[in-house]
Amino acid sequence: MTQDLTRLSLNQETIKQWSLPELAEGCVKAGVPGVGLWRAPVQEYGVEAAARLIRDAGLAVTSLCRGGFFTAIDPDERAAALADNRAAVDEAATLGTDTLILVSGGLPPGSRDLFAARERIADALAELAPYAAERGVRLAIEPLHPMYASDRCVVSTLAQALDLAERFPADQVGVVVDTYHLWWDDTVADQIARAGAGGRIASFQLADWITPLPEGVLLGRGQLGDGAVDFRWFRERVDATGFDGPIEVEIFNPALWARDGAEVLAEVADRYRTLVL
Amino acid sequence: MTQDLTRLSLNQETIKQWSLPELAEGCVKAGVPGVGLWRAPVQEYGVEAAARLIRDAGLAVTSLCRGGFFTAIDPDERAAALADNRAAVDEAATLGTDTLILVSGGLPPGSRDLFAARERIADALAELAPYAAERGVRLAIEPLHPMYASDRCVVSTLAQALDLAERFPADQVGVVVDTYHLWWDDTVADQIARAGAGGRIASFQLADWITPLPEGVLLGRGQLGDGAVDFRWFRERVDATGFDGPIEVEIFNPALWARDGAEVLAEVADRYRTLVL
Repeated sequence: MTQDLTRLSLNQETIKQWSLPELAEGCVKAGVPGVGLWRAPVQEYGVEAAARLIRDAGLAVTSLCRGGFFTAIDPDERAAALADNRAAVDEAATLGTDTLILVSGGLPPGSRDLFAARERIADALAELAPYAAERGVRLAIEPLHPMYASDRCVVSTLAQALDLAERFPADQVGVVVDTYHLWWDDTVADQIARAGAGGRIASFQLADWITPLPEGVLLGRGQLGDGAVDFRWFRERVDATGFDGPIEVEIFNPALWARDGAEVLAEVADRYRTLVL
Repeated sequence: MTQDLTRLSLNQETIKQWSLPELAEGCVKAGVPGVGLWRAPVQEYGVEAAARLIRDAGLAVTSLCRGGFFTAIDPDERAAALADNRAAVDEAATLGTDTLILVSGGLPPGSRDLFAARERIADALAELAPYAAERGVRLAIEPLHPMYASDRCVVSTLAQALDLAERFPADQVGVVVDTYHLWWDDTVADQIARAGAGGRIASFQLADWITPLPEGVLLGRGQLGDGAVDFRWFRERVDATGFDGPIEVEIFNPALWARDGAEVLAEVADRYRTLVL
């Protein structure tokens, strides 16, 4: 019954009403073998303690969210961002995950130069990637939906993420394929093939696209099947490249947070079986 | 003083608190020579009467918004959409504008097939373009920001719009270059050049990108200069193709609607002079 869940990972933000122990217990009970973690709740619990908790439960940590925010111009801000990213790498290594997901950063206040912002991301990656590689962690550039381009991430398409990643060795810098951010793009099949051929797919994440979008557009992701995304189409294209890694469900939606966590996870697993596999 | 406004057009939704007579009078007073109109307020006023009003004021109608919504699967819905679009063409011709702007339509309920939806748009264009051409009206495909892909327009990039438009003669089907929808795209310079070289730029529209986005993300456009868009960068690239047509300001923002219309228009003209020209 749980055999078909072997690649499923639950990103903890999907059921953020759960504490870390509840997350570990809930995933074990549901037969979900992986979890994606976020820095803030892990730090609050204690990084070492969280690592032990998840490991003792027999779960894999498939990713840590998140590093990034590399686009500041001010030298002090840049130095602080790099220091914080090194700490994120250390935390990923302690947690035993090889994947640190990056939200690269938006336009600094007053700037309108997307091209320069993307170059500052490349500069930061050049500093950070060797540090991460020494600790067994790969940086995963996540292209975010273009509606986040000004305030969160100037990397909006898989092609842009690959243009950045390919400046570095494939084992140091990869990309995230997240259906929520990429579903609308008619070039995404070609870019998934490009990412796979280059060994660049570091993470494959799922959420559905639903409307109307809420104010601020951060917490409007849909449960699998509730929206516009053709998940099987995506999964088949990712798998066709030879990728056989985790498939992580990451949904930010207050309606899911208001429900019983075990019920939400059962629904996720059910949707995963019928819509993704 | 007004000489530098010779290409400026005010889309009426920018100052929707104005009636059509107020719009005509306000633009004449401000030395703004063109207006972009919307079907609903024009129909309410009477199409013939609106045409006479704007013509008698010595103003040009630079575009009519909007036709489109071509993606229905149901044959009756498709027939109704085409009939409504023929009416929109007739209204454009009566108003004396050669440009009918199209919002092509989102995914029909239950569908997740973006590719098929885009093909249905092409089918509709094939039926509508000759009808429009006979009446001196060119169809202008507007790529809308990807955040509208599911519910308003599956054409999300200038490249997609051109892929559709180029199936038809350039004098029958063009594209809209709107900064609000396209500013984030790192391929847009190349696509503007492609559009210009093919004689496909039917309309050039301006609005700024500001955050946070409001619920529903329809009414969150910014006054020129308030956000992330580099307008001069866009205008120079559009002009470099040889385009010398109207530059239409189309901002949907309740904060502008709550102010005195003449004051808003003066601000638009000022921002246009300093940030666009």
